[in-house]
Amino acid sequence: MTTEMLPNWLKQRAFLTPDRTAVSSDERSLTFRELDHEAEEAAQRLNRLLDGTKPAFIGLMIKNRIESIIAVHAVHQLGMAAVMLNHRLGAGELTFQVRDMALTHVIHDEDFAEKANSLEVEGISLSLLFTGDKRPYAPKDHTNLDDTCTVMYTSGTTGSPKGVLQTYGNHWWSAIGSSLNLGTSEKDVWLCAVPLFHISGFSILMRSIIYGMEVRLHASFDEDAIDLELKSGRVTIISVVTNMLQRLMGRIGDGYHENLRCVLLGGGPAPLPLLQACKDKGVPVFQSYGMTETSSQIVTLSPEYSLSKLGSAGKPLFPSQLKIKGAAAPLEEGEIMVKGPNVTMGYHERPEANEKSFEDGWLFTGDIGYVDEEGFLYVLDRRSDLIISGGENVYPAEVESVLLGIPGVTEAGVIGMDDPVWGQVPCAFLVTDRPMTEEEIMKGCKAALASYKCPKKIVFVGELPRNASNKLLRRVLKENMLKGIYDEA
Amino acid sequence: MTTEMLPNWLKQRAFLTPDRTAVSSDERSLTFRELDHEAEEAAQRLNRLLDGTKPAFIGLMIKNRIESIIAVHAVHQLGMAAVMLNHRLGAGELTFQVRDMALTHVIHDEDFAEKANSLEVEGISLSLLFTGDKRPYAPKDHTNLDDTCTVMYTSGTTGSPKGVLQTYGNHWWSAIGSSLNLGTSEKDVWLCAVPLFHISGFSILMRSIIYGMEVRLHASFDEDAIDLELKSGRVTIISVVTNMLQRLMGRIGDGYHENLRCVLLGGGPAPLPLLQACKDKGVPVFQSYGMTETSSQIVTLSPEYSLSKLGSAGKPLFPSQLKIKGAAAPLEEGEIMVKGPNVTMGYHERPEANEKSFEDGWLFTGDIGYVDEEGFLYVLDRRSDLIISGGENVYPAEVESVLLGIPGVTEAGVIGMDDPVWGQVPCAFLVTDRPMTEEEIMKGCKAALASYKCPKKIVFVGELPRNASNKLLRRVLKENMLKGIYDEA
Repeated sequence: MTTEMLPNWLKQRAFLTPDRTAVSSDERSLTFRELDHEAEEAAQRLNRLLDGTKPAFIGLMIKNRIESIIAVHAVHQLGMAAVMLNHRLGAGELTFQVRDMALTHVIHDEDFAEKANSLEVEGISLSLLFTGDKRPYAPKDHTNLDDTCTVMYTSGTTGSPKGVLQTYGNHWWSAIGSSLNLGTSEKDVWLCAVPLFHISGFSILMRSIIYGMEVRLHASFDEDAIDLELKSGRVTIISVVTNMLQRLMGRIGDGYHENLRCVLLGGGPAPLPLLQACKDKGVPVFQSYGMTETSSQIVTLSPEYSLSKLGSAGKPLFPSQLKIKGAAAPLEEGEIMVKGPNVTMGYHERPEANEKSFEDGWLFTGDIGYVDEEGFLYVLDRRSDLIISGGENVYPAEVESVLLGIPGVTEAGVIGMDDPVWGQVPCAFLVTDRPMTEEEIMKGCKAALASYKCPKKIVFVGELPRNASNKLLRRVLKENMLKGIYDEA
Repeated sequence: MTTEMLPNWLKQRAFLTPDRTAVSSDERSLTFRELDHEAEEAAQRLNRLLDGTKPAFIGLMIKNRIESIIAVHAVHQLGMAAVMLNHRLGAGELTFQVRDMALTHVIHDEDFAEKANSLEVEGISLSLLFTGDKRPYAPKDHTNLDDTCTVMYTSGTTGSPKGVLQTYGNHWWSAIGSSLNLGTSEKDVWLCAVPLFHISGFSILMRSIIYGMEVRLHASFDEDAIDLELKSGRVTIISVVTNMLQRLMGRIGDGYHENLRCVLLGGGPAPLPLLQACKDKGVPVFQSYGMTETSSQIVTLSPEYSLSKLGSAGKPLFPSQLKIKGAAAPLEEGEIMVKGPNVTMGYHERPEANEKSFEDGWLFTGDIGYVDEEGFLYVLDRRSDLIISGGENVYPAEVESVLLGIPGVTEAGVIGMDDPVWGQVPCAFLVTDRPMTEEEIMKGCKAALASYKCPKKIVFVGELPRNASNKLLRRVLKENMLKGIYDEA
């Protein structure tokens, strides 16, 4: 018996606690027995649609719906890995991912039919998994922790997006690490209003199966609806990003129901005044730090330190570790490195990136931070240049690459600009070989990028700050902007 | 990064939650920081006592004291596996284990000095770990889940005792499987009044480190003291065997504090009237099934079924599985087989027993049972013939082998006899080649066996029931006894 084999998670959960609620939304709810049954039926239909073939990877372009969760499980029951596609991406971006993963099929929500059909794949409408003929298959007895479960794309600052390979083991250890920190109770209900195709949402699905816990699924982050849930005592845990927490705090009133025991805050550093306001209202915020590569949070502030270490992301989860590259003593700043069984084995077919991203089993996160004397992590910068806009990652290199593809643009630098609604929005600095208009630039961007990635401000400049190796210095760009150097440009 | 490496458990726990209580007794208590510090100091002293050598295995003959827990951690920090010796065994039995493991050193409680010094090893008094010179060593960064953590002896029905190898991974998965079933809370305190050298007690130590949970340690099962603890709300979970639960229920009065959320009942099947009485008093009993080979319980009755499935041992823990050998349908009886990452890889240097005990990764438990239509396990017999006396396993084959060594005894059969105090006590049926007295027999037994293993009743008979292969049929012996067939003997 190796430790890499566990019972088939979904079947085991349906066997152990068949009558517990697995997932609920405003429209319907399913017990684990029902979820397993629905997933089994959907898997048989998908098996017929695939005509008995079994690609290693299959794309999913889904919304936060119970049917999407059934589809994810169906894919896994058939032994395929799910490539979680972000439906907000443009056709060009999605085509890159489709080609990179050599996808042949994408299961898509009915509403994304047009986008899916524009890709070089066979689109399978989600609704087809719930009607029509079936083709039986032999479900696996076991879940092999070394098998790839999901792929999610991230690009970091190094250019083209990379598919992060997440094994069942990565998700397992993430869920277990989280449970050892937050505790688990059969009374827990975890509200998911973050996207299922992001690790923030997907990890809730995994915890649901592993813990035997209800997921309360919301189609999107509707602050009125979520405010009601948190006040009703219906849920005990919720995952949020800073922007969501800000919107909630705008209407909190007297506070939430005492059943709410954890507000898990991820997706980048939170402003101290917000954390202070949460503290004043008795909102149990758990700051955390993590990324797609760590299969959800890897560092979280434990209950007993949530007040005394306000602003820190906390300490690693039990199975994981962190260190600051090059730091010889506490408080020294440097690149954050992480290690643990929840950390990805690497990127899909990116030997060079994999070589550069790991050192003796430690992952370079690209983020800057320090640890205090007691070992609490403080994250200074969410990656050096990453822009987080409304909880979505915007990678400057990717936007720059589109800008540089517009005739006339010779140099491009993209940085984040503070925004009262979205936290940050992209701002582009351009050098052009002839006079150009904002309209020309925006047209080029919109053709290639999701709207949240399109620059909200465009500044034409004479030159961009670069280092000796001619590498763009986005940090200097940011400093110059704050100093007002580009105000007349 | 392989999944087999985790941070050094004790160091990680002391780093993550230094100020939580790790263990307390009536005399003292230690936080995790203090426990780590004490273990570190003890390890350095032990390192000096061992003169820098590092045997793979070291014996421990300990009582339920905080100092014993420190010693266990010291041994592990030095990278040695702990052979947990049962101090109730006779010198001959202990000598067998010492030789079988090729032990050179045994760390022993001061009270066991005489017994330890009678063995062919160097005895190290526990007190030496807390005073005297130290010798530094390099603590391991990691806990390797494949490394052997502990060895505990068991004999089953097949003759000489076997050392069950328990890896860190076995203990880890056991703790995690338990947490996914029982839930975990930072408020949990687990009362340990079962022996630390048994898996029942030792597994609580492992959960303490892994969960960050307080162990409330009792030197022994003093029902008055434990009754007080359960009524005070000081503890939330307690591990008991049937005999302990019976003694507690004799004085429960109105019931226990509502903080007591789990009474984990192991060590053999419990009588239904006892379970019914617990139910009536609102005592949250979780029946369970497990053995040394499964590193604690592997099957437990989940909260939601504790009433409707009274008498069942429940369903497997999430990472584990069970099946009934040869059963084609529910309710069919057969040998219980188990599988999972908490199950031992095998017995120390017993290739033949290892060959016989496993089939495709499944362990033959030797126990008979069945599962109902919903998959709940019912254990019919705690191994075919095993006697459980006051929570201690008494293996008939072992007692028989001593009896057969007494001059004049030609055949011996040992079975359990119901006893109001100990649950069961051994009863011996003997064929002799000349008239003998009980006194002669008892003298021979006492010279070779711990007193709890000595037969409490001796019956001289003309012949013993045997099958065609001349194998003793203990089951028939038991049936005959119940029918009164031996009453005149």
